[in-house]
Amino acid sequence: MTNQQTEKNLTVGDIGEQGILNEILPLLDAKDAGLGPGDDAGALRVAGGEVVVSVDTIVQDQDFRLVWPSGHEHKAYDIGWKSIAQNVSDINAMGGVPTGAVVSLSMPSDVTLSWAKEFARGIAGAITSLGADRLAILGGDLSRSSEISVTTTVLGECEHGKVLRNGAKSGDLVAVAGRLGSAGAGLALLDALQDSTSWNRAVLRLVEAQCKPVPPLESGPRAAQAGASAMMDISDGLLRDAGRLARASRVSLELDRQALEVFAQRLEPAATLLKADPMEWVLRGGEDFGLLATFPAEAEIPEEFTVIGKVLRTTGRRSTIRLDGKQLDYRNGFDHFG
Amino acid sequence: MTNQQTEKNLTVGDIGEQGILNEILPLLDAKDAGLGPGDDAGALRVAGGEVVVSVDTIVQDQDFRLVWPSGHEHKAYDIGWKSIAQNVSDINAMGGVPTGAVVSLSMPSDVTLSWAKEFARGIAGAITSLGADRLAILGGDLSRSSEISVTTTVLGECEHGKVLRNGAKSGDLVAVAGRLGSAGAGLALLDALQDSTSWNRAVLRLVEAQCKPVPPLESGPRAAQAGASAMMDISDGLLRDAGRLARASRVSLELDRQALEVFAQRLEPAATLLKADPMEWVLRGGEDFGLLATFPAEAEIPEEFTVIGKVLRTTGRRSTIRLDGKQLDYRNGFDHFG
Repeated sequence: MTNQQTEKNLTVGDIGEQGILNEILPLLDAKDAGLGPGDDAGALRVAGGEVVVSVDTIVQDQDFRLVWPSGHEHKAYDIGWKSIAQNVSDINAMGGVPTGAVVSLSMPSDVTLSWAKEFARGIAGAITSLGADRLAILGGDLSRSSEISVTTTVLGECEHGKVLRNGAKSGDLVAVAGRLGSAGAGLALLDALQDSTSWNRAVLRLVEAQCKPVPPLESGPRAAQAGASAMMDISDGLLRDAGRLARASRVSLELDRQALEVFAQRLEPAATLLKADPMEWVLRGGEDFGLLATFPAEAEIPEEFTVIGKVLRTTGRRSTIRLDGKQLDYRNGFDHFG
Repeated sequence: MTNQQTEKNLTVGDIGEQGILNEILPLLDAKDAGLGPGDDAGALRVAGGEVVVSVDTIVQDQDFRLVWPSGHEHKAYDIGWKSIAQNVSDINAMGGVPTGAVVSLSMPSDVTLSWAKEFARGIAGAITSLGADRLAILGGDLSRSSEISVTTTVLGECEHGKVLRNGAKSGDLVAVAGRLGSAGAGLALLDALQDSTSWNRAVLRLVEAQCKPVPPLESGPRAAQAGASAMMDISDGLLRDAGRLARASRVSLELDRQALEVFAQRLEPAATLLKADPMEWVLRGGEDFGLLATFPAEAEIPEEFTVIGKVLRTTGRRSTIRLDGKQLDYRNGFDHFG
């Protein structure tokens, strides 16, 4: 047996906690943000007198499958990537810059060491590729469990002040940055009973949008600087998240179908393949981790944002979301326990 | 059916993510540390220009059982308590004060709402009872999973500077604060095939030490202020953790059996019941979350610390731990994947 083969078969149960750490810590970069892994706690230098904090968990067979119904295999690298991507997105959505993270990985003891190393490489890869240049891995935890589960906590700084969900005002414009519906289309593809080996490149790009989401990292601070009145990331679908922003701000939103068509057109390859309506993915698909923001009419909206509607006064008892004048139900969408 | 019965039978799957949040957020206190749950990220004001961060996960059937072999039922309250206790302990072990936390709870959809609420009450109860007066819950996450899993991240401040593991010097004294071996004895009781309903109060106190550990919270900052040269919490057993401290500091430790006898005596009720050697629990039992610290000989060691040995120069290639002159193997102890 060659060394490579030996390592391929090695499980995390074979080498134990310290053995895993010895293998994966060199793959992660503690940078010079403070104290990295090794002591009871990590440390992070903070410039502004305030840190923002976000936590998210992804669980095997709930948030991802190791093998999807389509036969597509979910890479360990992509799971590490997504655990970072969805958390830095939350910091981005506050108008902040991610500066530090701790990662807790729970897994069965028969997971291979090479899986764990690819997972760690995915974390490092996301940090670099998403442009989270200041993000340092400050520590983590390893646990044994019957299913793979990753909880990532990311800290960040908001140089231009925090942008909350509750600041949208009647007369503001509604805008989005990043992808819309791509990850939702990708999820539908992964869940479809169609042989993934026959997919073309346009389709695979949508699958990648689900497995390796790309939150528009610089757009959050830029929107904050431009005076965004409210902002959040779109993790559970445009409609559902727009409903949350509207309720928090006690306003209603009017969306423009024509502006959203641009996003729907990009989903045509998958829509054709699955005989689906791409606008449904645009409105209800989650996990693209794009930004939904509102700006005062006089604000200079950063160019990567697309205006998709406007903020209206709420006339009835409840915030409403209208698309070309027709009221939509924004309560449907992803619910972990629904 | 009365309202009380209805609520008792309600599951988290019945009421969904927002329903759970509506029930448990009022039980948690965001205090005035910053922005609490509700936006994409929480926020925490930081005084000193640096935060320390620690994360830990506890998993059903790995770190706790809902029903132990002894028949003892593990309360949801205690699981919430422990998730806080073991994390504030890490901050304590750096000489810091816990100031903020985010909690991620994963659970099956058939978990009852009353379980989730008791879990939240345990978090709030630990914060109050352990004296973590400044600790605010800043946010969290709910996920569905096949087993209960809790990941808690705690942030803190070190007013008197961070105490690391690597500062012990030859000539320093070794001291501990808090319990030693109690949680280990409690674990042995919970795992024993003995009917827990017949246990007396002395025995139940040890079970409680396992289920509701009490890290000596003020002792960490006090040790830092007194000039502790190295410190960590004892989570995996005195010997194993002393070995880590010794290796990080490149020193050896000589422990004094007589000083440790005090701790062993407190475990006699369980030792008699299980025909066990209580000193084994003192040396190898984990999860009391006491402090292991070293102090320069001239330091005024805070009175709650018990001196249990001294720091020696390492003569051979490896750090050694000796008890009354006899070298002990400090590599055995709890390993999640061992």
